[in-house]
Amino acid sequence: KHALWIVVLALGVLCWGQRLLEIPEYDGRDRVHELTNKNYKTVMKKYDIMVIYYHKAIGENLMARKQLEVEELALELAAQVLDDLHDKDIGFGLVDVKKDVAVAKKLGLEEVDSIYIFIDDEIIEYDGELAAETLVEFLYDVIKDPVEIINNERELKGFFNLVEDIKLVGYFKNEDSLSKYISYTKKSLIATNLKLDLNEVNFYEPFMDEPVIIPGKPYTEAELIDYIEEHDRPTLRKLEPHSMYETWEDDINGQHIVAFAEESDPDGFEFLEILKEVAGVNTENPDLSILWIDPDDFPLLVPYWEKTFGIDLSSPQIGVVDVKDADSIWMEMDDEENMPTANELDIWIEEVLVGKIDPNDNEDHDDFDDIDSEDSDEEKEKKDNEEEDDADKNDDEINYNDD
Amino acid sequence: KHALWIVVLALGVLCWGQRLLEIPEYDGRDRVHELTNKNYKTVMKKYDIMVIYYHKAIGENLMARKQLEVEELALELAAQVLDDLHDKDIGFGLVDVKKDVAVAKKLGLEEVDSIYIFIDDEIIEYDGELAAETLVEFLYDVIKDPVEIINNERELKGFFNLVEDIKLVGYFKNEDSLSKYISYTKKSLIATNLKLDLNEVNFYEPFMDEPVIIPGKPYTEAELIDYIEEHDRPTLRKLEPHSMYETWEDDINGQHIVAFAEESDPDGFEFLEILKEVAGVNTENPDLSILWIDPDDFPLLVPYWEKTFGIDLSSPQIGVVDVKDADSIWMEMDDEENMPTANELDIWIEEVLVGKIDPNDNEDHDDFDDIDSEDSDEEKEKKDNEEEDDADKNDDEINYNDD
Repeated sequence: KHALWIVVLALGVLCWGQRLLEIPEYDGRDRVHELTNKNYKTVMKKYDIMVIYYHKAIGENLMARKQLEVEELALELAAQVLDDLHDKDIGFGLVDVKKDVAVAKKLGLEEVDSIYIFIDDEIIEYDGELAAETLVEFLYDVIKDPVEIINNERELKGFFNLVEDIKLVGYFKNEDSLSKYISYTKKSLIATNLKLDLNEVNFYEPFMDEPVIIPGKPYTEAELIDYIEEHDRPTLRKLEPHSMYETWEDDINGQHIVAFAEESDPDGFEFLEILKEVAGVNTENPDLSILWIDPDDFPLLVPYWEKTFGIDLSSPQIGVVDVKDADSIWMEMDDEENMPTANELDIWIEEVLVGKIDPNDNEDHDDFDDIDSEDSDEEKEKKDNEEEDDADKNDDEINYNDD
Repeated sequence: KHALWIVVLALGVLCWGQRLLEIPEYDGRDRVHELTNKNYKTVMKKYDIMVIYYHKAIGENLMARKQLEVEELALELAAQVLDDLHDKDIGFGLVDVKKDVAVAKKLGLEEVDSIYIFIDDEIIEYDGELAAETLVEFLYDVIKDPVEIINNERELKGFFNLVEDIKLVGYFKNEDSLSKYISYTKKSLIATNLKLDLNEVNFYEPFMDEPVIIPGKPYTEAELIDYIEEHDRPTLRKLEPHSMYETWEDDINGQHIVAFAEESDPDGFEFLEILKEVAGVNTENPDLSILWIDPDDFPLLVPYWEKTFGIDLSSPQIGVVDVKDADSIWMEMDDEENMPTANELDIWIEEVLVGKIDPNDNEDHDDFDDIDSEDSDEEKEKKDNEEEDDADKNDDEINYNDD
């Protein structure tokens, strides 16, 4: 009651027009439930959708507790904002991996530090950034009908405009069981444009103009799901805040080929075009999955990445990163006005895949796994990437210790 | 020292690979300077770029103090992240409108609640969301060279891909004084594609495929700046977090025509295409500036907008909003599968411009300016927008009071 009063007061200060653009801040009211064996059924029954954060045990660790507090705040803000949603009741809950073993087991929670979304009879895992904005945006997508009916040229253009995710499109005369899951058209002209036969479903990898016809029509739902699961590691994929940890965990032999390119920058755009061309050529290769990161999506990480990898992210970069120790090696591009050709990039990727280019081969490298001290790792990075700019380094930076 | 130690400890918990994607949190160290008449010169001399938040006096108001604390935290996080930047030193400072009158005067700070960025001999005003992410991203753009040299077809495609901002492009044989400010090409083939004569500069409004040739070549710098300032209110513009307040303040006769469309949704994309078409037809009209809001950019505001405007943002919407009292009226679109044609939209906009459609005309409307109570305004909105969904409304909602 008290917290609410404060909010009303705060709103009084602003005029209506300004309020329309005021990004909400947490009002202090508790909305996130701590789920226990006793209350979880009652709580979950109250909501159409339940968002559960399955978190680590906190115990005595001060930092872990502080971390959880920040995460809880993000969930509280999300819950507060979604309170205003008119057509769905969305609840939020916490399950502690140690204290609430029974609840976790009953709900089928498996991966700690993940968020599980219970909607209808489905459970969707969220393994992205724990920030209110990102989570709330993801929830809108969860609520939304994933199927679009493509009726005209403009809608078709809109369909082609979605390049960052896997998409399926079919040509059906009647709504059948599959049309619950797949964007489709009933118009033969559109089907012709999509090069679809009746009852056929096409599969588009991210960033690919040409689809693959899923073999074996007519399909059952299970057959389609199998096909998608078999093909869910695309040749080129974008790191997105709402699925970043999930994507990052899906490395290939402990490594990621990472490309940094800012789409809204002409050089970044140019590099991305070359990248798509190379991906198109290699789309049949199951051992290749290039991770594209647009620095614009992760502004707070840019200086840290520049420092760790010893690269300048104001122009495009491509490299190989060892996911365990963050060692990395980057393609040399001498001049941002002079991008590699698709062919040069293809050869470079080939050399990565056969192991000729390897982040762990870097000669000045000591391969120590001791990661307790930030300093030693920082030096390791620095040694690899001595830059001209180092000339004017700060006094508080650590000297290299050559061992 | 103590704060630093905690951070090092925290990093020890994570493995390197995970750390690469860990969005930084504030480490507790003070980096933002409180500028006073005594220290401001010394502080500002220490940095290449200085970011100054010119804030309201806090005084006794509890909410204002709380608000400033949250804003300071955002600035602290931005300062912390940018500490790692290798090629620029960026400093942050606070100036209190009441306590630091002299400093504000000397630095030329005018608009309270704005952020001023001092770089070289320029002062750039930031009037966007006060969040670390948005501000840091904006600062990267400030640092970056705004000029691109367009050498090939792919770079040209990258240039055309930038549709959301005003852009200028010229054709110069030599680097001249203008080439410091304007993207340009030296290649005659590219110039032909751009339909440019030598020494000519073209002006592109946001979302317009066809440029306007700036008359009177060869130009002086001042002539170009004058031209841009005269034409800086485009027919269609996007609300962006880094300039949202500035854009919102630039209303036309106290109103905004607001279009909600999610670009990554096929329906939203379709509507946006129609919108661009209509904007193209009306580009000569100085009284028309449609504000496009992509709900994806403001996830935390979506439920609040839906409630205030009484609309459903899961499909496209266009309406007129009174910026003073947030009254609004929205175009009827009965079915999301059935968008208005460009012609229908054009007629609707025409009616708005001549005042036939006016948010303040809404018959069940009481035009009271009393905005102290949240409740009464909420009801006002509700009355205008009775929805079917209201059937299952919560108990704690307020009953309509028909007065």
